Amino acid sequence: MAHIDLPPGLPGITGLLTSYPETAKHLRGFAEALLRGPSSLTSAERELIATFVSAENECVFCMNSHAAIARSLFGADRDLVDHAIADFQRADLSDKMKALLVIAGKVQQDGRGVTEDDVAAARAAGADDKAIHDTVLTAAAFCMFNRYVDGLGTWAPEDAAAYEQAGALRAEKGYLYVAGCDE
Amino acid sequence: MAHIDLPPGLPGITGLLTSYPETAKHLRGFAEALLRGPSSLTSAERELIATFVSAENECVFCMNSHAAIARSLFGADRDLVDHAIADFQRADLSDKMKALLVIAGKVQQDGRGVTEDDVAAARAAGADDKAIHDTVLTAAAFCMFNRYVDGLGTWAPEDAAAYEQAGALRAEKGYLYVAGCDE
Repeated sequence: MAHIDLPPGLPGITGLLTSYPETAKHLRGFAEALLRGPSSLTSAERELIATFVSAENECVFCMNSHAAIARSLFGADRDLVDHAIADFQRADLSDKMKALLVIAGKVQQDGRGVTEDDVAAARAAGADDKAIHDTVLTAAAFCMFNRYVDGLGTWAPEDAAAYEQAGALRAEKGYLYVAGCDE
Repeated sequence: MAHIDLPPGLPGITGLLTSYPETAKHLRGFAEALLRGPSSLTSAERELIATFVSAENECVFCMNSHAAIARSLFGADRDLVDHAIADFQRADLSDKMKALLVIAGKVQQDGRGVTEDDVAAARAAGADDKAIHDTVLTAAAFCMFNRYVDGLGTWAPEDAAAYEQAGALRAEKGYLYVAGCDE
């Protein structure tokens, strides 16, 4: 049971966003800009970083939700998402994405862990400043979202189909879209 | 040196917010709503939580910046801030604030660490749902801000007076205020 009173039927962050609209407004706008705004990374790549960090933080709701969004965005390459969660170094990802996931993994632990060598490796594989920025901020942001969701004891659906359906809708409509039980 | 190209003279998060305005707009609005919007906690109490989490994450820029803001807001009780960072259980804080800092410390480590007993203790000391929500989200948010600042290798001033001056200005004007070198 959640640690605070939340509307029934709205899992994970969705009940929190509904009950606390003053902060939700900015969190939705932030997610939209970060994960879907202009970037040298595709939205699929940014959602993969979000999924990877949520998996490292063992946040069941966020991991399943963003994995479903990433699968929807990767389309024919959807299996990449589960391969990346299982072992990204052995997944069929570009060297750039692997180098960025190394950085994301360091940020998940502690921002100070990112080294000049980590950044140099990402640049050598084609990452520009914006890609490095968006990787670090996405990893940092999911250290927030994961703690928000789990720190308040919200519930996570166990039905995989529910995540796939919600993920496809979110991938299509983005983070500013709000539709009660459609979320 | 920072891991990406940032404008000279703007320490910590200020250079990042200047260089990446698409996300900065939402981060500023989020900080304003979270730390200064309507709440059952005072802004001074919320800044104390932000400072405590930044200290736990050893983020020098965020800890010094928010300690200075908190000191400015606590006014005559400004010494409370340093006492709380050093050992909050022995500081002259209310039982409610001590219980909320226990929760913030759990969230800083891993959101799943917050127990029903932690929340019950905070409620028994007078915390309502909004106070518990704002404590968890503030602690979670600074796990993001700290990682954003440190994950990109930004620099932190060593001059205590610079933090005090910037903190007093931020305490007065809030997070939507932008003024280049005044930050």
